Amino acid sequence: MFSRRKSLCLFAVAFYLGLDHFSFASSRYFNLTYLIFTESWKPGGPILFYTGNEGAIEHFAHNTGFMFELAQNLSGAVIFAEHRYYGSSLPFGNFSFLNRSHFGFLTAEQALADFAKFITDFKCANHQFADSPVISFGGSYGGMLTAWFRQAYPNVVSGGVAASAPIWLFPGMADCHGFYQVTTYAYTQAGGEECVTTIREAWSLIDDISKKPGGIAPLSKLFNTCEPFPNANFIYEFAQDYLVTLAMANYPYAASFLGKLPALPVKEFCKALVTCPVGGSLPEQVERFACAFFSLYNYGQEDKCLSFNDNSSVDANGWELQTCMEMTNPICSDGKSDMFKPSTWDPIAFSNACQEKFGVRPRMNWAGVQWWAKDLNTVTRLVFSNGDLDPWSAFGVLNASSAPGATVIRIPTGAHHLDLRGSHPNDTADVIDARLKIREHIIDWIEAWKREYHPLYCLDY
Amino acid sequence: MFSRRKSLCLFAVAFYLGLDHFSFASSRYFNLTYLIFTESWKPGGPILFYTGNEGAIEHFAHNTGFMFELAQNLSGAVIFAEHRYYGSSLPFGNFSFLNRSHFGFLTAEQALADFAKFITDFKCANHQFADSPVISFGGSYGGMLTAWFRQAYPNVVSGGVAASAPIWLFPGMADCHGFYQVTTYAYTQAGGEECVTTIREAWSLIDDISKKPGGIAPLSKLFNTCEPFPNANFIYEFAQDYLVTLAMANYPYAASFLGKLPALPVKEFCKALVTCPVGGSLPEQVERFACAFFSLYNYGQEDKCLSFNDNSSVDANGWELQTCMEMTNPICSDGKSDMFKPSTWDPIAFSNACQEKFGVRPRMNWAGVQWWAKDLNTVTRLVFSNGDLDPWSAFGVLNASSAPGATVIRIPTGAHHLDLRGSHPNDTADVIDARLKIREHIIDWIEAWKREYHPLYCLDY
Repeated sequence: MFSRRKSLCLFAVAFYLGLDHFSFASSRYFNLTYLIFTESWKPGGPILFYTGNEGAIEHFAHNTGFMFELAQNLSGAVIFAEHRYYGSSLPFGNFSFLNRSHFGFLTAEQALADFAKFITDFKCANHQFADSPVISFGGSYGGMLTAWFRQAYPNVVSGGVAASAPIWLFPGMADCHGFYQVTTYAYTQAGGEECVTTIREAWSLIDDISKKPGGIAPLSKLFNTCEPFPNANFIYEFAQDYLVTLAMANYPYAASFLGKLPALPVKEFCKALVTCPVGGSLPEQVERFACAFFSLYNYGQEDKCLSFNDNSSVDANGWELQTCMEMTNPICSDGKSDMFKPSTWDPIAFSNACQEKFGVRPRMNWAGVQWWAKDLNTVTRLVFSNGDLDPWSAFGVLNASSAPGATVIRIPTGAHHLDLRGSHPNDTADVIDARLKIREHIIDWIEAWKREYHPLYCLDY
Repeated sequence: MFSRRKSLCLFAVAFYLGLDHFSFASSRYFNLTYLIFTESWKPGGPILFYTGNEGAIEHFAHNTGFMFELAQNLSGAVIFAEHRYYGSSLPFGNFSFLNRSHFGFLTAEQALADFAKFITDFKCANHQFADSPVISFGGSYGGMLTAWFRQAYPNVVSGGVAASAPIWLFPGMADCHGFYQVTTYAYTQAGGEECVTTIREAWSLIDDISKKPGGIAPLSKLFNTCEPFPNANFIYEFAQDYLVTLAMANYPYAASFLGKLPALPVKEFCKALVTCPVGGSLPEQVERFACAFFSLYNYGQEDKCLSFNDNSSVDANGWELQTCMEMTNPICSDGKSDMFKPSTWDPIAFSNACQEKFGVRPRMNWAGVQWWAKDLNTVTRLVFSNGDLDPWSAFGVLNASSAPGATVIRIPTGAHHLDLRGSHPNDTADVIDARLKIREHIIDWIEAWKREYHPLYCLDY
């Protein structure tokens, strides 16, 4: 449906932009991809704009049905803009990640400047949209971008919906334990204490086996891996990451946001931990864990074995690089308030690892300066929505007092930006309510915008 | 008094900052100079912060006495931060202007990021200032920076006084005729229509002489130049620029802001146009013009001849470069609504000249995107003050309706940021009133800030 070729409803277009908006050392330009849908648009209707995040833009268009519903409802146009250095928006083509002089322009500031310049130039070139207020949307990192977009460019964007935006994921802004605590909470809600205890105990059992000479082979066999696990630590990290993925994608219906999954996959996982058949070759708990794992990971994929390939459609490599520059995100665990192994987070070790791997060191306190840390007193016309079952909510704005001019919406049954997805018969009352509230706010923003003076600034040269 | 050495009252210090805050291609750092005065400061008192503009920072400290008076009155500290690429804050030392890969980081965005990072790090390193709200001040381009500082970093700066800030000097944002129209208005106010007519007529008389073979020599002699005028056009541009300078520095007392000048220099100039003695070698009007010119230009300098050296203490070269990157400023005249020769402004020719001279082309519409053009609906806690006699007011915010959340102050008798200067017995009632109003706003901002939640974001690593 959202292919790069012309389709009936969504066009993919490239837009020519400067590589460095804030300095003149480089004279390079590049093409930014965007998708546009104007079938529902009527003159004066809003532009609903998605601030693309770490992946090809089609992926987000596929998983943000709410924007298309709003477009129909509000006579709006929809634009999804790709984030530089993702999808086909590679400033140096295949060499974009060569070294810091190539990948060094992969920053949130530059990406937002891309979006601001694009919208301004787009409106100037298409004057029929001059009276169309722009409402920004984004989920996860895209939600952070939407929040910052409204902060930095209120002249361009008239309101924003920052869904599941962990704007306080940075060092010193939130407790690093929160992420796995919320993950654990999601498993407790879905499968009770029993599920959590089983998972917590599985780690040491798996460790015991894997650390025996030749112990990794039977584990690889048990997990049905296509290739053997490379080492003991890999098993843990791979499994831990995936349990987080299940929590993030814990929607009330089958979906394929981060790989194909059934409805309520966390519940399915916890259920499988009890119902999976036992073979008897390894401890019962480990066998059930492996079986539950494979049943979710390979859900609907008809693969005969467990592949380690990332099937989430986001670009984990680009994001890892961002964490080594601006987006450093401390996560830790204690094994008590969460169901994982205890782990600490060491800023110095992290910085050294970045230097070694990419030749850059993160600027850990920059986001606090540039994006206002917890000082959000002047933020207006912005919704921060979060699902209580979403691990990333640990870094989100959950209390209205934190941003008195914004709107805070919590979705108790929600996973990762569930509210941005299209309506579904299985939707819970709280997400239906959240979408209604968001729609009301957007209508208010549009009306307010039309009352105010918002001249469009265009030059012919 | 404000030397770079330690003095009794004002310390000059260097602060280590990244060259490029928005990308990671460069790993370079440089030293930013700032001046600090803490004698009046008491715990909880504000930090009064000057956003340095195009010149060595001491110059602005010398000409912004109002901040020191406020410091005493409000128990505040005073900091003057130098703008990168000016004074001693040269990122590449003597090579800072070598080519675009060196001077390319001379942008307002980077300068403001310097200031924001500096203030944050300064407060983190000096915790006694954690509860001190920061009030920003700036005049002219420094005023533009103060306005944008409050727009971009309301977490860092709690309020701003943008004095004589031509924030709409950019192509398409204001009528290019305004600048010389206001200049002409200042001469009309000071010397009546007669003065303006004499000046307007002088240009063609001077042209007539200079275009005769050997005509430049007698003019050089008449103007008392140290070296001969290089050509006819130079005479006009040099004189025109200086008449603007007189209007900018048209203070009600002798001062040395843009060169040493008597009180009300525009009035003095117009008076001299009438009273200057006539020698009889050239037309009377030209002789009087040259005499008037020399009497002001060389006021109190004991020079025997007219030097073409810039004695204004601002760095015209750095600023010229900025106009070729971000700060493009169209100025034109028609010779009817103003007292100058008709001139047009051609964006293409300007861009080509920049390319030829510096190897860069200006991004003429960028300021409209980045700094919100005329869409200032969300701006709060900011004063825009302008003197009606200041040429730059043509590009300033003069109506409250343009920025409903800000405060607009007009000073009918004011020249270029007169309000930022220290009190003087000759001060007119309107500038005294403007300073009182500004002080009241600052007190309000400080009180509001103390009621709100403004956590300081510091990292130990």
